[in-house]
Amino acid sequence: MVGGGQLARMTHEAGIPLGIRFKLLSDTPQDSAAQVVNDVVVGDYRDLDTLREFARGCDVITFDHEHVPTEHLRALEADGIPVRPGPDALVHAHDKGVMRARLDAIGVPCPRHRIVSDPADAVAFAAEAGGFPVILKTVRGGYDGKGVWVVRSEDEAAEPFRAGVPVLAEEKVDFVRELAANVVRSPSGQAVSYPVVESQQVNGVCDTVIAPAPNLPEELAGQAQELALRIAEELGVVGHLAVELFETADGRILVNELAMRPHNSGHWTQDGAMTSQFANHVRAVLDLPLGDPRPRVKWTVMANVLGGDYPDMYQGYLHCMARDPQLKIHMYGKDVKPGRKVGHVNTYGDDLDDVRERARHAADYLRGTITE
Amino acid sequence: MVGGGQLARMTHEAGIPLGIRFKLLSDTPQDSAAQVVNDVVVGDYRDLDTLREFARGCDVITFDHEHVPTEHLRALEADGIPVRPGPDALVHAHDKGVMRARLDAIGVPCPRHRIVSDPADAVAFAAEAGGFPVILKTVRGGYDGKGVWVVRSEDEAAEPFRAGVPVLAEEKVDFVRELAANVVRSPSGQAVSYPVVESQQVNGVCDTVIAPAPNLPEELAGQAQELALRIAEELGVVGHLAVELFETADGRILVNELAMRPHNSGHWTQDGAMTSQFANHVRAVLDLPLGDPRPRVKWTVMANVLGGDYPDMYQGYLHCMARDPQLKIHMYGKDVKPGRKVGHVNTYGDDLDDVRERARHAADYLRGTITE
Repeated sequence: MVGGGQLARMTHEAGIPLGIRFKLLSDTPQDSAAQVVNDVVVGDYRDLDTLREFARGCDVITFDHEHVPTEHLRALEADGIPVRPGPDALVHAHDKGVMRARLDAIGVPCPRHRIVSDPADAVAFAAEAGGFPVILKTVRGGYDGKGVWVVRSEDEAAEPFRAGVPVLAEEKVDFVRELAANVVRSPSGQAVSYPVVESQQVNGVCDTVIAPAPNLPEELAGQAQELALRIAEELGVVGHLAVELFETADGRILVNELAMRPHNSGHWTQDGAMTSQFANHVRAVLDLPLGDPRPRVKWTVMANVLGGDYPDMYQGYLHCMARDPQLKIHMYGKDVKPGRKVGHVNTYGDDLDDVRERARHAADYLRGTITE
Repeated sequence: MVGGGQLARMTHEAGIPLGIRFKLLSDTPQDSAAQVVNDVVVGDYRDLDTLREFARGCDVITFDHEHVPTEHLRALEADGIPVRPGPDALVHAHDKGVMRARLDAIGVPCPRHRIVSDPADAVAFAAEAGGFPVILKTVRGGYDGKGVWVVRSEDEAAEPFRAGVPVLAEEKVDFVRELAANVVRSPSGQAVSYPVVESQQVNGVCDTVIAPAPNLPEELAGQAQELALRIAEELGVVGHLAVELFETADGRILVNELAMRPHNSGHWTQDGAMTSQFANHVRAVLDLPLGDPRPRVKWTVMANVLGGDYPDMYQGYLHCMARDPQLKIHMYGKDVKPGRKVGHVNTYGDDLDDVRERARHAADYLRGTITE
């Protein structure tokens, strides 16, 4: 697996029961996954020689993030190493411009959008899309709200162009909430679909996920699942695909983002589903039959733990574990920095209010924003 | 953790979500746990200098097996390293003679037993205990049927004495089945009790575990749980304690063996309980509040996968995963040798016959004793 973040950490955890040998390419020996994996290579994934050396002896390569240059992936494939998801799929997660063009071509509903050439062109787009504000995104390199701007004027539109990366303009959708449809697809074409979840963002960062999305009409849930399965097939995705969606006031769903790897909106599956997204990602990448994606319980809530003022969150365990013996804590071994995702908690049960309160309490307590 | 077997492997897996740093002392770099842990020291646990060097910088030491000499554990404690379970508890799992004497002293029902000095003394014991056959056990070093003999004559009684280790004689109990009561206890004295399970042995090796034990009268289940909690407290156990029990035809329970570490009879908890035995062992050893031990589902069945004629069991995954998308496979990364425990499977659901059939099928298929 290329990339030593928490997704690699949790994928390794899910791979242990399958008896597989997990090899990691990590930026540093301190990265989240590098702490818990035996076979770690420290190196730069942007360097083709490093990637090639790492890939030697691997049966298959997969990814913790979408930042490996597409041409490097093609080089690995030319060397005979299976890359899953492959570069032809992954380019859609790597480049938002390519993604939008492809979704248009296969008729998937998206916010209005086009590539804009400069701040003046962004103003022109705003006029076409019903006025400011509009969303500007660099087509590559963004995540967790980085590389995304809400722009209200030509002046504000200057910043996104400074990186020298093409800029995509999108209408600011008047959504009632955000949803995510998670699916996993194997090289043989088998695919499974998790229940559609509600994803609540704070400052552009995923904060809480409720599985399944409460009060989602069955028809809309079915549409979202079909959409995700269709995108996975049309784009040739292998492994986990997260489709982030807007639910609009008038009952439509529009595709916001794609991620081709285990995703924050699927963390609830570790404790709430028959088979976790990480286990199914491993199975897909190894071309093994996929596991049952259905929930084990009526409601599961995931809440992210962000870094707060406490450098050490161990003390928080004492309170949280004693308060809620069913709480599931997933920490990433990261140094605590304010606002950084350092872990998440899962809670589950039959009563959504109770399940949500327990997750919220634990996440807030571990962050240090509450003290009782 | 001292010892690189599958128990350490699965304890590491359970510790990853807590963000702890797991350090392993392993006999070889190829041991089951050594394959999946980052911080591995290869060395001999019987050598005190090796143990001391390993323990430096550890917050606490725990164990994959009971074979570390008691005097070494005392030396580590004298160095100021917390050892959990401690030597005063662990000696009861290390030495069956000490265990029986202690259980007698606290009034725990056991099979009739005494230390015998030679084959003639074994004959005398048989006369006291109602005749042959009797069970002879070396007090140290046995596991999985090793170090245990069913003896029918003075001649047969010679073998157990050859190791030069004291020999314990026990009556051969006329049991209707074997049960196990698993509990976890923390240094502060908090303890949790898992449901009592039925454990089916084949050739002295655990084969199948059914959780909870079917048709076990509630009163007997309560007795078994209380017994295990009492033993944990009286012996000062910290961490997981498995109490293996005989259920007799006349409705009594007798203690067969003790294990002070995660145990084969608790593997079902990985997929069938709110908190697995491995997660609770880690929490106890770190003096964290314990997790809910209750089952998540009506029935869970665990079946061990023994090595068969197939050197590679990966091909079996294709069949087993496709047949049963809810099957939980736990392989240990061990080389396949006939009869060796190389993994286990868990299945769960509401219908015991179905759950049992699925586990049995998968374990047999992965071993290679059935081919469809």
